[in-house]
Amino acid sequence: MASRTSPTITTIAQAAGVSIASVSRVLNGLPVRAETERRVLDAADRLGYVPNSVARSLKSARTHQIAFAVEDIGNPVYLAMLREIQPLLKAAGYRLVLHSTGADAAEEIEVLRGLGQRYADGLIIVPIRVTPDHLAELRAAEAPVVVIGSLPDSGLADNVRTDSRRGVEMALRHLADLGRRRIGFINGPADTVPGHARSEAFRSGTARAGLAVADGTVHEGRFDRETGAEAVHRMADAPAPMPDALLCANDLIALGALDALRARGLDVPGDVAVVGMDDTDLAAVSWPPLTSVSLGSAERGAHAARLLLDRLGADTGAAPSAPRAVTVEPRLIVRASTGGARVVDDGSAAG
Amino acid sequence: MASRTSPTITTIAQAAGVSIASVSRVLNGLPVRAETERRVLDAADRLGYVPNSVARSLKSARTHQIAFAVEDIGNPVYLAMLREIQPLLKAAGYRLVLHSTGADAAEEIEVLRGLGQRYADGLIIVPIRVTPDHLAELRAAEAPVVVIGSLPDSGLADNVRTDSRRGVEMALRHLADLGRRRIGFINGPADTVPGHARSEAFRSGTARAGLAVADGTVHEGRFDRETGAEAVHRMADAPAPMPDALLCANDLIALGALDALRARGLDVPGDVAVVGMDDTDLAAVSWPPLTSVSLGSAERGAHAARLLLDRLGADTGAAPSAPRAVTVEPRLIVRASTGGARVVDDGSAAG
Repeated sequence: MASRTSPTITTIAQAAGVSIASVSRVLNGLPVRAETERRVLDAADRLGYVPNSVARSLKSARTHQIAFAVEDIGNPVYLAMLREIQPLLKAAGYRLVLHSTGADAAEEIEVLRGLGQRYADGLIIVPIRVTPDHLAELRAAEAPVVVIGSLPDSGLADNVRTDSRRGVEMALRHLADLGRRRIGFINGPADTVPGHARSEAFRSGTARAGLAVADGTVHEGRFDRETGAEAVHRMADAPAPMPDALLCANDLIALGALDALRARGLDVPGDVAVVGMDDTDLAAVSWPPLTSVSLGSAERGAHAARLLLDRLGADTGAAPSAPRAVTVEPRLIVRASTGGARVVDDGSAAG
Repeated sequence: MASRTSPTITTIAQAAGVSIASVSRVLNGLPVRAETERRVLDAADRLGYVPNSVARSLKSARTHQIAFAVEDIGNPVYLAMLREIQPLLKAAGYRLVLHSTGADAAEEIEVLRGLGQRYADGLIIVPIRVTPDHLAELRAAEAPVVVIGSLPDSGLADNVRTDSRRGVEMALRHLADLGRRRIGFINGPADTVPGHARSEAFRSGTARAGLAVADGTVHEGRFDRETGAEAVHRMADAPAPMPDALLCANDLIALGALDALRARGLDVPGDVAVVGMDDTDLAAVSWPPLTSVSLGSAERGAHAARLLLDRLGADTGAAPSAPRAVTVEPRLIVRASTGGARVVDDGSAAG
């Protein structure tokens, strides 16, 4: 019978040779010296201690954490999202767990699968590629997920996207309005979600704006500064005339292009107008300041945080509502690299 | 007797009217539908279920999380640290929990105190002010803490610092070598750890380099771009001659100064040479590219992560070793805003 009676905190303290307060701390998961913890746990094991807090601990399986997973937190686009997401989560009582996956699809899959370990109550993810494995994991996800970026099946998860095709068209129309006719394009990897969308948009947008795309003026690399510089040097070394405008698939590429144009003695925007995408902090700082297509990174981050918090709040109620999709409209921020300083939004992009 | 016998998973499944697999999921803390969870917990409560996994769950109190707390994750200095810290923690099997405290000392205190809730196995913190409350919480911290920044008592915690005084002196010597004689200084809040150190260093460094500090050319504001622009406009509006060089307490201030100097038609470096501090990504992007004192943000982040991982690894062994301190040496990265393009390191700063 002695072994059937669950010991009290006092019994354990006596057996372990420590204070009652120490036992209480250990049994409540609070930190104590390693030696103290070992002695309490040994005594509790030996005496067959069983806590009556099972239901409580199971019911409080909420972690009060939300994970945010991006390719590279060093990229200012993701930083702009993080700056909106972090205070919203904090205000709602959640800690932020940050994953930087290195654009590795397998790591993104691991992050989704890892939700089954219940380290976070929800996840905001910006996948750079959406593979069939991503879709399968999204279907099986063990906690609410919000995807920033396009999904082939909008019923899979809450989803915040932008219309990068429209953004590209706004940039091309702006360049055409300025009288530019030979447009070059420097893209990141075309097998990524953003790279593919920009490539398609460039193809259709130049056609619609009546712009020529000369041979050797469409380049593909990474979403970085080196890619922009290399592409400009290759164009400058080629026998064909330089384009009179360059559309760059992100601001980092555009900054590299500006570096190389300067090195080549070409004036921006006199000889070549340059447009970036993402409108990061770097766009306003560069010289000349960079015209850039804002894809609303900050707004997308804020929408994603709100969608997730809504769902976590609603979780306690009835069956979950259907996944929702939010689209953030692009805007063209015109600066000196194309000669002006104004914002072009929906109105001027229409038609 | 029936009530004394702990029910099995099968008994609970029957009582709850759910599958054995569902009971297993709930009792192991895995996610299930809310309704299922409620029924299992009710049945487990009713039947007096007691798990035998207490010791296991107590022993695995490790969270495999490390917290990183900074004033503002939007500041590129902290981003540079994060970019080093994140992969090191990931490689060691830790998730990163990010706190952005808004430079609120009370919030920093909360982060330190929150370690008692065991949501993280350790903390890397960059306090902007070190108050007596900070020191008290550091003394009482319930998990290992690494402080990036100066501490009045090096015995309190592992500590990674830089020598910003030396960095300021290197910058002043560089300006003196270029023949500049009237040096202005634009600082952030002088009651912060970095603001105070820079202010002291400017005072002593100008004296040692034989540089004059004219009336009305020392300004204090925030560590942001607006502060730099406002200070330049105030100096330009004043009757006294403009300084021929400006030392700015960080790169953001320097970028604001560049904006205002351009707006005033002043040439950089012809009329005014400009030096920033922190050598962030923005320094290389600005026009003209910005000479900046590197305080080794990336290196400080990497050192902090390694110190913390060492301590967590050693935690299982004997009594903890004494707190360690690492100092990262500053370097001056010379770019066009002072007329050159070279790195000045220890050698040229000596004497």
